[in-house]
Amino acid sequence: MELGLVGLGKMGGNMRERIRRAGHTVVGYDRNPQLADAASLEEMVAKLPTPRVVWVMVPAGAPTEQTVGQLGELLSEGDVVVDGGNSKWTDDKKHAETLAKKGIGFVDAGVSGGVWGLQNGYALMVGGDAADVAKVQPVFDALKPEGDSGFVHAGKVGAGHFAKMVHNGIEYAMMQAFAEGWELLETSDVVENVTDTFASWEQGTVIRSWLLDLAVKALKEDPGLEDLRGYAEDSGEGRWTVEAAVDLAVPLPAITASLFARFASRQEDSPAMKMVAALRNQFGGHAVEA
Amino acid sequence: MELGLVGLGKMGGNMRERIRRAGHTVVGYDRNPQLADAASLEEMVAKLPTPRVVWVMVPAGAPTEQTVGQLGELLSEGDVVVDGGNSKWTDDKKHAETLAKKGIGFVDAGVSGGVWGLQNGYALMVGGDAADVAKVQPVFDALKPEGDSGFVHAGKVGAGHFAKMVHNGIEYAMMQAFAEGWELLETSDVVENVTDTFASWEQGTVIRSWLLDLAVKALKEDPGLEDLRGYAEDSGEGRWTVEAAVDLAVPLPAITASLFARFASRQEDSPAMKMVAALRNQFGGHAVEA
Amino acid sequence: MELGLVGLGKMGGNMRERIRRAGHTVVGYDRNPQLADAASLEEMVAKLPTPRVVWVMVPAGAPTEQTVGQLGELLSEGDVVVDGGNSKWTDDKKHAETLAKKGIGFVDAGVSGGVWGLQNGYALMVGGDAADVAKVQPVFDALKPEGDSGFVHAGKVGAGHFAKMVHNGIEYAMMQAFAEGWELLETSDVVENVTDTFASWEQGTVIRSWLLDLAVKALKEDPGLEDLRGYAEDSGEGRWTVEAAVDLAVPLPAITASLFARFASRQEDSPAMKMVAALRNQFGGHAVEA
Amino acid sequence: MELGLVGLGKMGGNMRERIRRAGHTVVGYDRNPQLADAASLEEMVAKLPTPRVVWVMVPAGAPTEQTVGQLGELLSEGDVVVDGGNSKWTDDKKHAETLAKKGIGFVDAGVSGGVWGLQNGYALMVGGDAADVAKVQPVFDALKPEGDSGFVHAGKVGAGHFAKMVHNGIEYAMMQAFAEGWELLETSDVVENVTDTFASWEQGTVIRSWLLDLAVKALKEDPGLEDLRGYAEDSGEGRWTVEAAVDLAVPLPAITASLFARFASRQEDSPAMKMVAALRNQFGGHAVEA
Repeated sequence: MELGLVGLGKMGGNMRERIRRAGHTVVGYDRNPQLADAASLEEMVAKLPTPRVVWVMVPAGAPTEQTVGQLGELLSEGDVVVDGGNSKWTDDKKHAETLAKKGIGFVDAGVSGGVWGLQNGYALMVGGDAADVAKVQPVFDALKPEGDSGFVHAGKVGAGHFAKMVHNGIEYAMMQAFAEGWELLETSDVVENVTDTFASWEQGTVIRSWLLDLAVKALKEDPGLEDLRGYAEDSGEGRWTVEAAVDLAVPLPAITASLFARFASRQEDSPAMKMVAALRNQFGGHAVEA
Repeated sequence: MELGLVGLGKMGGNMRERIRRAGHTVVGYDRNPQLADAASLEEMVAKLPTPRVVWVMVPAGAPTEQTVGQLGELLSEGDVVVDGGNSKWTDDKKHAETLAKKGIGFVDAGVSGGVWGLQNGYALMVGGDAADVAKVQPVFDALKPEGDSGFVHAGKVGAGHFAKMVHNGIEYAMMQAFAEGWELLETSDVVENVTDTFASWEQGTVIRSWLLDLAVKALKEDPGLEDLRGYAEDSGEGRWTVEAAVDLAVPLPAITASLFARFASRQEDSPAMKMVAALRNQFGGHAVEA
Repeated sequence: MELGLVGLGKMGGNMRERIRRAGHTVVGYDRNPQLADAASLEEMVAKLPTPRVVWVMVPAGAPTEQTVGQLGELLSEGDVVVDGGNSKWTDDKKHAETLAKKGIGFVDAGVSGGVWGLQNGYALMVGGDAADVAKVQPVFDALKPEGDSGFVHAGKVGAGHFAKMVHNGIEYAMMQAFAEGWELLETSDVVENVTDTFASWEQGTVIRSWLLDLAVKALKEDPGLEDLRGYAEDSGEGRWTVEAAVDLAVPLPAITASLFARFASRQEDSPAMKMVAALRNQFGGHAVEA
Repeated sequence: MELGLVGLGKMGGNMRERIRRAGHTVVGYDRNPQLADAASLEEMVAKLPTPRVVWVMVPAGAPTEQTVGQLGELLSEGDVVVDGGNSKWTDDKKHAETLAKKGIGFVDAGVSGGVWGLQNGYALMVGGDAADVAKVQPVFDALKPEGDSGFVHAGKVGAGHFAKMVHNGIEYAMMQAFAEGWELLETSDVVENVTDTFASWEQGTVIRSWLLDLAVKALKEDPGLEDLRGYAEDSGEGRWTVEAAVDLAVPLPAITASLFARFASRQEDSPAMKMVAALRNQFGGHAVEA
């Protein structure tokens, strides 16, 4: 089939390549003309047969909002827009409603796989009407990993990004799990070869996993992780996971602890702990550090 | 080689089978004569060539203590005792010292793999002197999974159980991660097919792992997990992990949250929340439930 | 001065009484005619001299929204509406903008004090323009406790409810602190007289506080809190506190743990712990409870 | 009555003063001869009438252990040793057993009050046999604050330090509660005068407390706490509280979060977050900081 693809950065560029390898035609557009197959969104749209399918792979928030709006102007009844970016699931309904006014379908697709996706395939969680999803299915099949899993039509519009959001929430806590275990091993002197111990866990253990494999890879490249700062951004999904849980009264202690650990990692100093230091000084005369 | 194996329960029985399949001789002893190859510890020891290697696979605490003590009476200089049970790593040093008085070596072996170990192999984390470990190595090689990983000589006596303890701490938080994510998906009605969504994550995602595979298996057997109570025991390693972290001043928020969730799961009612209810009633006249 | 007061429930009724004791005139309106001084909002407004000040003390959300809307119809330029309910601080701006179109001022007032406020006074945190706040000041002075504190003009519209929201977040964690300590004392058998121990803390300790006094009162009324269920609602402020923290990337582990403990207290069974039980059963053959 | 007092530092010195003001005789001993009333422990003991009461107020651990041991040599049947330091409650039983061999009684006394105790009195939680406690009661009465509370005989030997340990656990979480609330207010720009807001809470609110008073005092001395680093030691009781909870399977999320926040405050960089950064880089190519 033929696909319009907006956004050819780290993710989008690799996805174009994987879709092409599966025998499909991709007309890619990017603000950077060196990456693009078409000089403008208009040109990209004009090159596609109807019903057109356009996959948006730009940063969540304003860029996605804007691109969906422009596509609403350019596309026609029966066409479908796929948002494959990291959009908040509550944005999907708004985008779907905007496009529905012109009879354009909308599918949200959560995409996991990172820099390994070109080689291993991208796991896809999608939301939308069955008829709209069907129009994109050949592309989903091209992107997903081989085998039975790696794709789910999770529900109506929003369900794809919701599923991806929860996936990332789980991911945060799994990363934190390995991180805490590693710190404990490093701090104690009981285990003498921590990297080997992590490596030994890659087979036969309950915790064997792709993240463990990546941890071992990182530790072999930089034992002790001495070249790194303990600083971690968060891309939004972790926050939205906690927000959804708070909204639904679901206790989420491990995932939230993982999110807060990232927040704390980005602070030069902890304001809260200044207050604790101040209080200890006030009641106990405990020394403080300036 | 020939191995004495004390304790032929769920774990020990399968381990005997896997070691035998690798071509070694195992003389097993168990209090249950129907499982045992020898009528007594004495008989088991008598059947082994020197230097003898005896693997203890009985419950941690008093049973292990007692068995190690008896073996100390029966064995001789140059023999080696392996504790493959879930002993606390701080017990290992005591056992090693007791045996060392008679020149008997001691190796602690953390074993992961559960009911799948017979088929997939058991991951092994061992601690002890290199000479002692070497005497057991053929058995370790028989038990471990095929491939490069699944075995580590982690350090001196205690390091094997310490590594296994940390492994289990990580395991607690990984299980909690999937559990929290699953509860959020189940509570929300956005994703319509939660089991399929979990299954889709088995390939191509960042969170693909053996625990995820098991979660999918459980969900396919019992969608909604309606046949289960939300009740989870803890086997000790999670508590010791938190104790070690507290002792070493290592923050372990996700692992500890996972341990506390298990504690809470076993309470008929929460005393702490009685107090919260009482306080809300005192200051706000908020209704309470009796 | 003269005040219109909408909502004469548990809080509003006591506040009317305290304001009257200070020598002011209150024209109260409530849907329940037995509580009301005026038969309708219209009648209440008609009884007030200009510039009118009307205090809204109805449940947050739709009831407050509706009442503010009606007052917008009935009041005139120069009048002031005070929202003293537990509104979310983000609602305040919307209310202020609606009223500003007619030149009506808006002040948000977070009110703490519960059932003890009539006797001890109500702590007030208010947001709004200085000129609007000034029009309500005599009522604030009547409501607040004697002494220097108990009142703050915290900032622009929204600041009052924001300050109250954070106050309640702190309150959640303080309650949880006493609750956890109490459970630990009750569970251990080391301390033989837990109520006396709590009572002993009321003077001379670092943790002496009004909440402690209330805990002692509750324990003396019902030692062991045996007449209560460990079940606690949350009124919204705790959730909004966590949401604000997530939005601002502020780690809030103790307050969030307190919120999650309330969520968990209301679950018949924990879905998350069903998953943990299922996983333990899958990998370890651990017994589960049905 | 007459009291021997060992340890005349910040706490011990003030306690000697408060006991003397109540009309009792104190013979103090300290390694620093400028503080001491007796040149040696022997001389101090020799100056006391029988049955002697000696209060030990030296650092927990080895110094207390040693002092109790020396007093065991010097004292006689019917005498009583009080350990008023921050000893771990599990040490008390050992000390009591050592002294009991010579018929010497032992009382453990948890003491709260810090630098304010001289003026306000010290809250006391004591454990031991009633007959031993009775011998010390006049001193307890001198030390405690005026009024009904501030003293409890909490149970047998160990109960005093156990109660004090739980007190401090609660204290950790209360401090953390104020600290988190303060950070949220400071980070947001909604509330414009944070110190005034804290000060307004001192009366009429649910969270009014001595710790809040101290927070206001600290904020008035140093608005923004800019002269402080967010660095907080922990004195042991918080760790022991968590250990006791883990041992008794009591979930303690807020108190533990508070302890972990202190641990984290003392790290130059977070090893765990290095691992999180490494993993994000591995799977997503996310930039890391070196």
